[in-house]
Amino acid sequence: MELRLFYEGDNMKISEKGVCVKGFSAAGVKDGKYGLAIVLSERRCTTSLMITSNKIKAAPLLVSAEHAEKEVYGVVVNSGNANAFTGERGMVDAGVMCSAVASRLNLSSDNFLVASTGVIGRQLDMDVIEGLIERASQRLSSESSASVEAARAIMTTDTFEKVISVETVLNDGTVVEIGGIAKGSGMIAPDLNHATMLCFITTSAYIPENKIDEILSEAVEDSFNLLVVDGDTSTNDVVVLFANGMAGNRDVDENFTDSLNFVAKELAKMIAKDGEGATKYIEATVKNAASLEDARKAARAIVGSNLVKTAVFGGDPNWGRIVSAVGYSGCNLEQDKMSLFVSESGREVCLVRKGNPLALDSTEELEEAENVFAGSEIYITLDLGLGKAEATAFGCDLTYDYVKINSEYTT
Amino acid sequence: MELRLFYEGDNMKISEKGVCVKGFSAAGVKDGKYGLAIVLSERRCTTSLMITSNKIKAAPLLVSAEHAEKEVYGVVVNSGNANAFTGERGMVDAGVMCSAVASRLNLSSDNFLVASTGVIGRQLDMDVIEGLIERASQRLSSESSASVEAARAIMTTDTFEKVISVETVLNDGTVVEIGGIAKGSGMIAPDLNHATMLCFITTSAYIPENKIDEILSEAVEDSFNLLVVDGDTSTNDVVVLFANGMAGNRDVDENFTDSLNFVAKELAKMIAKDGEGATKYIEATVKNAASLEDARKAARAIVGSNLVKTAVFGGDPNWGRIVSAVGYSGCNLEQDKMSLFVSESGREVCLVRKGNPLALDSTEELEEAENVFAGSEIYITLDLGLGKAEATAFGCDLTYDYVKINSEYTT
Repeated sequence: MELRLFYEGDNMKISEKGVCVKGFSAAGVKDGKYGLAIVLSERRCTTSLMITSNKIKAAPLLVSAEHAEKEVYGVVVNSGNANAFTGERGMVDAGVMCSAVASRLNLSSDNFLVASTGVIGRQLDMDVIEGLIERASQRLSSESSASVEAARAIMTTDTFEKVISVETVLNDGTVVEIGGIAKGSGMIAPDLNHATMLCFITTSAYIPENKIDEILSEAVEDSFNLLVVDGDTSTNDVVVLFANGMAGNRDVDENFTDSLNFVAKELAKMIAKDGEGATKYIEATVKNAASLEDARKAARAIVGSNLVKTAVFGGDPNWGRIVSAVGYSGCNLEQDKMSLFVSESGREVCLVRKGNPLALDSTEELEEAENVFAGSEIYITLDLGLGKAEATAFGCDLTYDYVKINSEYTT
Repeated sequence: MELRLFYEGDNMKISEKGVCVKGFSAAGVKDGKYGLAIVLSERRCTTSLMITSNKIKAAPLLVSAEHAEKEVYGVVVNSGNANAFTGERGMVDAGVMCSAVASRLNLSSDNFLVASTGVIGRQLDMDVIEGLIERASQRLSSESSASVEAARAIMTTDTFEKVISVETVLNDGTVVEIGGIAKGSGMIAPDLNHATMLCFITTSAYIPENKIDEILSEAVEDSFNLLVVDGDTSTNDVVVLFANGMAGNRDVDENFTDSLNFVAKELAKMIAKDGEGATKYIEATVKNAASLEDARKAARAIVGSNLVKTAVFGGDPNWGRIVSAVGYSGCNLEQDKMSLFVSESGREVCLVRKGNPLALDSTEELEEAENVFAGSEIYITLDLGLGKAEATAFGCDLTYDYVKINSEYTT
């Protein structure tokens, strides 16, 4: 599925650089089931790191959490093996990944963060990893193609590279760039407090140390934390924001945060569209909720429901599953204030109006809903009629191929 | 899949009566996609009713909650339409179901509970329902075959009838009977405070009014609340315990509660084995947890994980998904105290011993694990090594047929 752009404001335009914005270079190489990417800044970065809330945290995340306290210049990432539940040896291997790349670039081991994705509970093949680090170090480049290579190298069951970048004019006139790459296809579920999947965002902006965590956290809350492929929160999820300050701005403003939020949401949508086995994209917006938390819970429950996902796959307008999912989401609701709409390619149909089901057997609404559900991008809007809060969640259908991909993964 | 009995104590034996224990009769009839069952006691019952925590509650559950406060003699249940999200008309129709059966049996409307299962958001076809009530009322019988008929009439995507009954000798020497029927195959997920799916349990025992709710709640907590097919908590779930006191006992004791817990667990296992599209049964036991709540959370997360379920379907010993699921379950854990075992037909293999993964690439353990995962009933045991609490959860694999069944349901 192709990326569609939903918003391109006056202060912002899409660029082609990916993570290779001013002062950053990248590289990506593959060797059999293993892939390896490096993202590097020529200047020390202010960094924010968000990791999974899964209590089984992969070794590279523990190492990264330590290194994030030091002077950070970049990240080394492998695919093909998660280096999770691998004990002491896993911790050593994650450290060796940092030192191997650092020694080739005249930096120190703790200047690098490290991340992994792949099978849990297997030791890394360090001969392969070190060979890949050697090759990737030599290929580092600031060309936009290097960003695509890096995005490709960290793919597992992903079917396309997830890359985006924008240029934004701050209110003080400075032009700053933001770029991101991400991977993610399965074992993806939202988490309220932390981030999900692998995502590396670079920016040439200067972001004050005391603001960067909150800025990233807010971007993640409305993007990756509202993304569900299969409800399994991974041991390896990580989102990092690297800010090298080379744009020369003195502070960031809402133009920057709007652009960062845009980048994070677009990457989340790409992951949803590339969900394992997905044939359809599902976007659920919950409006007029009593609170933001309610809107998020309800939107996430809709895109997370296996029954909604299979109905969308089958083009079956079984909308009762949508209201049922909202019912168990924990959000406040009053049945007779709820209205439900679905749309696709601009065609919208109202299925429930203030608690009254309109799409009953052999009504026109049910027929129109069938047409909408036959589409490839399904937009669901639920109006709770209780307050003013709104949230949008991102997901995909549940298909035979999801089952196929995941029943054949390690063997 | 066939029912296997795991426990038959000295005080208890399996009987063939189903819900038709002393003083109870039943009936079940079908008409196209609709089915209808009646369970009736000749004496007024002490009753406990547990309904879904989904905030969208089907009309029959709201009517039943009112009637449960009155003198209860039985229940009328239809399949083929959930009568959920059906507004005022749904409430009226649920009431009419009670009065239609009551008038034929010289009882009053509020002597009956009512339940429904099927598609959400469609109005009942009351002509069909009333015809079915007429036929079922005439067929009421205390033969065990009537219990099977009732169980069959409430099936939707279920592939076999779920019936069990036992006879138990209390410590005072009284013989009491307990019988149950259940339906459930999809839209099944645990809920901490309330019950799931349709289940009707009858007993000839007298249960004091002030004890019955706690007794049922405890039975449900360790059975239906630890059952996951697909993670979708339904709008229509209900469990009812009817006690008509005809056994003549003066109180109940632990022999009774043991037997009731057995009946509830066996029905939960039958539902797991008949999960939509299921080819394999999964049972997860979490031992030595820091608390009972932790053990339940972890066990439920294992059987609820789409990735564990697809791995089991594919016979893929991808055990990292099991520890990952436990990691995001919210239970307390220390990685180096965790041990993981899987077994099938008495063959057990240790995959992780105190945090050390044994089933690595090309180890004997991984090979043995492959053999276990190739089986049709997979028993997973996770030892958290932290405390003394234990819980067992029930589930099934996620298959192509689950996707097929649920992508073609209403259309």
